[in-house]
Amino acid sequence: MQKFTLAVLVENKFGVLARIAGLFSARGYNISSLAVAETEDPTVSRITMVVDADEKILEQIKKQLNKLIDVIKIVDLTHKDCLDRELVLIKVKIDAKTRGRVIETLEALGAKVLDMGSSSVTLEEVGDQQKINATLGLLKPFGILEIVRTGRIAIQAEKGA
Amino acid sequence: MQKFTLAVLVENKFGVLARIAGLFSARGYNISSLAVAETEDPTVSRITMVVDADEKILEQIKKQLNKLIDVIKIVDLTHKDCLDRELVLIKVKIDAKTRGRVIETLEALGAKVLDMGSSSVTLEEVGDQQKINATLGLLKPFGILEIVRTGRIAIQAEKGA
Repeated sequence: MQKFTLAVLVENKFGVLARIAGLFSARGYNISSLAVAETEDPTVSRITMVVDADEKILEQIKKQLNKLIDVIKIVDLTHKDCLDRELVLIKVKIDAKTRGRVIETLEALGAKVLDMGSSSVTLEEVGDQQKINATLGLLKPFGILEIVRTGRIAIQAEKGA
Repeated sequence: MQKFTLAVLVENKFGVLARIAGLFSARGYNISSLAVAETEDPTVSRITMVVDADEKILEQIKKQLNKLIDVIKIVDLTHKDCLDRELVLIKVKIDAKTRGRVIETLEALGAKVLDMGSSSVTLEEVGDQQKINATLGLLKPFGILEIVRTGRIAIQAEKGA
């Protein structure tokens, strides 16, 4: 089992997400994360999903997705020269004792602080999975109160760039 | 019609996303964007969705969601003191003539460049809807080749912070 990143361009029509999620659910394919939003063309939405699969299952998934009438195009971004990023909002516990050390850690990370209260600090972090996991690892000892992640999105770099 | 932001905490179980997307689809509720990923607790996923609705429809949506067995909690982040952010990757067209002006614009925006090729530049932008729309407006005249958005995510600021 491996994590694959698929970009699925779909007609921005009613019920498309339900059909795609239903296809995964009915066949027992697991979606690890999914992000769907409009594209540069308002009639088209882009679904970026990370799925746990092996090569054989992935081929089946792509074939099934291609059969759906509202699917325009599927791009497998797993092995391509692509830029992948995720946004995560993290709320970390602070108190009089830990406050200084938390702030030092955030400064060392170059993290952007969005909100600072008396018992928590909320930061924003953008990066690939490795960077985000490293940040979470460093903040964990202070106590993580809440994490909100977007799931991974990806775009192909210019060929030969 | 208005845009509402809901955070739905669900059991990280097979088929939950399909049930939720199916509920929206069956009742004719429109999802404008949706992001789903794991939380600090690996048995729980968080779905952040932006839905187009009026107050009455929103109440129905919340009631229906609450009936689903795998839904743990729904938080309406629309009117709360919350921090909302979205990540977008933008590929802008460049050529010998526009290259300098595109780079100047990106510097003025403080945008982070991820990839620079001979015919395109790819940047990463994080912000609220207003900031992202402003960036897209400034870059549009150069030609936008591709946009990949995560959809909005949101977190509540510390009360009284």
